[in-house]
Amino acid sequence: MAAEGYGFLGLGIMGLAMAKNLLKLGVPLTVWNRSADKCDPLVELGATAAKTPAEVVLKSKITFAMLADPAVALTVALGPGGVVEAITPGKSYVDMSTVDADTSMTISKAITLKGGRFLEGPVSGSKKPAEDGQLVILAAGDESLYHDAAAPFDVMGKKSFFLGEIGNGAKMKLVVNMVMGSMMTAFSEGLSLAEKAGLKQTDLLDVLDLGAIANPMFKLKGPSVIKGSFPPAFPLKHQQKDMRLALALGDEVAQTMPVAAAANEVFKKARNLGHGDNDFSAVYKAISESS
Amino acid sequence: MAAEGYGFLGLGIMGLAMAKNLLKLGVPLTVWNRSADKCDPLVELGATAAKTPAEVVLKSKITFAMLADPAVALTVALGPGGVVEAITPGKSYVDMSTVDADTSMTISKAITLKGGRFLEGPVSGSKKPAEDGQLVILAAGDESLYHDAAAPFDVMGKKSFFLGEIGNGAKMKLVVNMVMGSMMTAFSEGLSLAEKAGLKQTDLLDVLDLGAIANPMFKLKGPSVIKGSFPPAFPLKHQQKDMRLALALGDEVAQTMPVAAAANEVFKKARNLGHGDNDFSAVYKAISESS
Amino acid sequence: MAAEGYGFLGLGIMGLAMAKNLLKLGVPLTVWNRSADKCDPLVELGATAAKTPAEVVLKSKITFAMLADPAVALTVALGPGGVVEAITPGKSYVDMSTVDADTSMTISKAITLKGGRFLEGPVSGSKKPAEDGQLVILAAGDESLYHDAAAPFDVMGKKSFFLGEIGNGAKMKLVVNMVMGSMMTAFSEGLSLAEKAGLKQTDLLDVLDLGAIANPMFKLKGPSVIKGSFPPAFPLKHQQKDMRLALALGDEVAQTMPVAAAANEVFKKARNLGHGDNDFSAVYKAISESS
Amino acid sequence: MAAEGYGFLGLGIMGLAMAKNLLKLGVPLTVWNRSADKCDPLVELGATAAKTPAEVVLKSKITFAMLADPAVALTVALGPGGVVEAITPGKSYVDMSTVDADTSMTISKAITLKGGRFLEGPVSGSKKPAEDGQLVILAAGDESLYHDAAAPFDVMGKKSFFLGEIGNGAKMKLVVNMVMGSMMTAFSEGLSLAEKAGLKQTDLLDVLDLGAIANPMFKLKGPSVIKGSFPPAFPLKHQQKDMRLALALGDEVAQTMPVAAAANEVFKKARNLGHGDNDFSAVYKAISESS
Repeated sequence: MAAEGYGFLGLGIMGLAMAKNLLKLGVPLTVWNRSADKCDPLVELGATAAKTPAEVVLKSKITFAMLADPAVALTVALGPGGVVEAITPGKSYVDMSTVDADTSMTISKAITLKGGRFLEGPVSGSKKPAEDGQLVILAAGDESLYHDAAAPFDVMGKKSFFLGEIGNGAKMKLVVNMVMGSMMTAFSEGLSLAEKAGLKQTDLLDVLDLGAIANPMFKLKGPSVIKGSFPPAFPLKHQQKDMRLALALGDEVAQTMPVAAAANEVFKKARNLGHGDNDFSAVYKAISESS
Repeated sequence: MAAEGYGFLGLGIMGLAMAKNLLKLGVPLTVWNRSADKCDPLVELGATAAKTPAEVVLKSKITFAMLADPAVALTVALGPGGVVEAITPGKSYVDMSTVDADTSMTISKAITLKGGRFLEGPVSGSKKPAEDGQLVILAAGDESLYHDAAAPFDVMGKKSFFLGEIGNGAKMKLVVNMVMGSMMTAFSEGLSLAEKAGLKQTDLLDVLDLGAIANPMFKLKGPSVIKGSFPPAFPLKHQQKDMRLALALGDEVAQTMPVAAAANEVFKKARNLGHGDNDFSAVYKAISESS
Repeated sequence: MAAEGYGFLGLGIMGLAMAKNLLKLGVPLTVWNRSADKCDPLVELGATAAKTPAEVVLKSKITFAMLADPAVALTVALGPGGVVEAITPGKSYVDMSTVDADTSMTISKAITLKGGRFLEGPVSGSKKPAEDGQLVILAAGDESLYHDAAAPFDVMGKKSFFLGEIGNGAKMKLVVNMVMGSMMTAFSEGLSLAEKAGLKQTDLLDVLDLGAIANPMFKLKGPSVIKGSFPPAFPLKHQQKDMRLALALGDEVAQTMPVAAAANEVFKKARNLGHGDNDFSAVYKAISESS
Repeated sequence: MAAEGYGFLGLGIMGLAMAKNLLKLGVPLTVWNRSADKCDPLVELGATAAKTPAEVVLKSKITFAMLADPAVALTVALGPGGVVEAITPGKSYVDMSTVDADTSMTISKAITLKGGRFLEGPVSGSKKPAEDGQLVILAAGDESLYHDAAAPFDVMGKKSFFLGEIGNGAKMKLVVNMVMGSMMTAFSEGLSLAEKAGLKQTDLLDVLDLGAIANPMFKLKGPSVIKGSFPPAFPLKHQQKDMRLALALGDEVAQTMPVAAAANEVFKKARNLGHGDNDFSAVYKAISESS
């Protein structure tokens, strides 16, 4: 019976790859996407296509979703033909979209009011890790559901975390991105100082890569920063927004964060210099530029 | 003839390990140490002990040194019975001690005035990498000597760099340590924010370790920071001194470094709170402490 | 006819003093306060008391208001018996309460929709300047109304400004308070450094007071800071909130403000140390405290 | 007998004005200047010219000096025909030049070794205050001499301070200049934010000038900053040097100063943009510039 199977809503680049991995579990999979044709490749692999999110929920024990943004997440959950319409006790919903804590909270309340269970599960990782089942899943909400979703999480991710109450998934992403933004700015300062002090920037990259602070980001971004190339893998304006939100979180809990605050001002400067749509590593330009 | 062999001055923890690795080259090795008995283990392995640095230089083509600090480095090079006394054209000296650019410059001038060649070569890495021949060597000075020392560098280090003119080795270490200090402070802010925001610090460590900014330092220091344990692998006061010196270097070349400057003020705060002799990761206390 | 006179809503400490000054103009004044007995002193001086804000507006050409907070300002303007009910073309409303730009905007729209004119006019200065007619008035909105209100502004304030569109009054206050917060933190650093460096803090105050940066705030706050006394004239948590809002304004327009950001983190630290309800000069404690 | 009179060494713009004021005391005055013709105007007014500093000291009870820099101060005190040659018990020397603590200490030791008394007395104020006897004198060293110099200080300055041990005069100047540098940067942030947020910068100046943080510097520099005019009254590179030295002083005593550190990085940026020789108010350009 299909209600023992899984559902998946949203078959964009990420969702498609994740749903494909779910098929490996050998359990019936029902899928839905706003543009129905995106379901075809999965149907060919054995999935069933549904006409609405509610229909997916009806046929599934646990329904997963990977949607574009908070607005879409709200519509798919609460709109006509949406998830909540079909939720009954025994049904579960796991929203893996990247949304803010408030959106998550709204959806959670609507689901639990109808007796269902809810989990937010934003992921760290993009297309390739999604295809390879190597995502990192930052889950929060209903802990029993987290355990029941162990097998699906296992095929989609290399690691999943249960972080406690709803909102903690979003908060964890902010903290990580804040540290990342400070590191990128510190890295930029090092690269720019090296050049002005008569050292070769490529030597600095090589030395860093052999030591205690070697990390994939320095290795990946360093060479392109040196070339002055900033194709937007993660746009600077989004990085700066995350730093602003992390600082706002720090403000709520009275946590002083002078390094993040200093880095945020450099990112603002970089926006002011026109780098908002470039990769966040373009913060280097706000550090290195001279008259 | 022994003048075709190598010499080594200074057999402390690091020097002993490095000299042992030199023996692997199968070339005569002459060693010296202020306390002569430190030579014994190497003599047992086939090295010859000398009574003065000058005597080592007399018997060696290239003499290496690993000395405690700038004062000792100056005495061994320029004092009675020192390196310079025996330097003649064709002889070379490589000082791998961690000294400032001025000390390096002074020694370099004295050596080259007598027709010898000189290289500074501070290393990155401590006891274990020294024993395993896995040091990173930051060489600067005479490039032809750098090439002639390729075989010795190869058995002592996993990688060596030629960084240009005398002083560049010291500068490279400062730049690297500056980035490291900023990163440790950013990491502390993340850990402290996580806790105040209701996240588990161990979860943050695990999430960081799976992502683009994963690095050995976070992995090594994170668990002890959380425990409030700061045994001094690298004392905070030394880290702060390096940040001060890096900022001074930035001042010379008019390089703005707001993140490093903010981090430096946190390190000063940590010193003020009594953490100068703890590990530099104790900067966390200056970020997290509350009333 | 009374509609040629002025109205005043809100007779708290500030409003009472301001309304008294309006009486000096020799023009009929109609007043209203939520607790009607607050009208008595003004009635004794010749004013007329009204039962509702709408009644005041009915009888007045220009109605002024000085209300406790945004919520009250909205109720008085838009609630039953409120200002908007009586607004017709030819009538004008000047809200001098300290409210955010959004609240101001909402009231402005409601007034102008009924054909009236609106001006926001937050003031700088407290009880004494209000009594002495020495307030600074930061007006924004309808410029013709600003000119028509010249005589009332003249008796209430020592100076009034027309700052352009609605919201600019609030913004100007934020900018001024931001500079003030940075200055107080810089002053705290100077005082704390003086003490640690073996100088007398009172000498520093005296020297500062004789030079180019002498200002009333240093003169007023310095002696109490030195004594460790922080009775809340302007609570630290409000100062920090204003810095946060000023930084948010900077974020909107991509203006880098590294000094304000650094100061804000010190204010957050001070909140964390338990000084939120003390005077904002208690930021000194976050700078000076040691183990 | 002339040894009851005063001496003055160094008749530049400042020294000439100060020595003229000393004449008002009606006590014999002996003067010296490297270029002897600079003595003429004072001789016309009744002073006696001497051929060497030593000769001045011989004829004076207390000798004052106002010299160009530390090098000149050392030569005049310790060189051939210098002050020290003529110092005997009962003789006193007051050096009012702006020098560093080490220079002051060196001179102090030489004077006291010969039984004389020494005071450092750097001043705050330039040509006009010097002429008007309105300098602020930051004295440190021998307290009994400070009291004996009360009358001369009274005609040269509007206020003098005794700050304790030698070096404290220099330190006080650094602390004051540090607060001034932070304030100028905070002011620049306010001006730049005002403009980007749609406020008039001249309105901000007017509002600031009416409030608690009104000060002569904002009033003097504000209009020229707005015009983009930065004629060097106090060159930016000197302001930045003083901030660097103040931060170094903070480093010695483990005083955290995050606002000064942030401001210093902006001054460095301004140097990097080519404003080192402009007035220190050009720090505004490093805050306001955009792409």
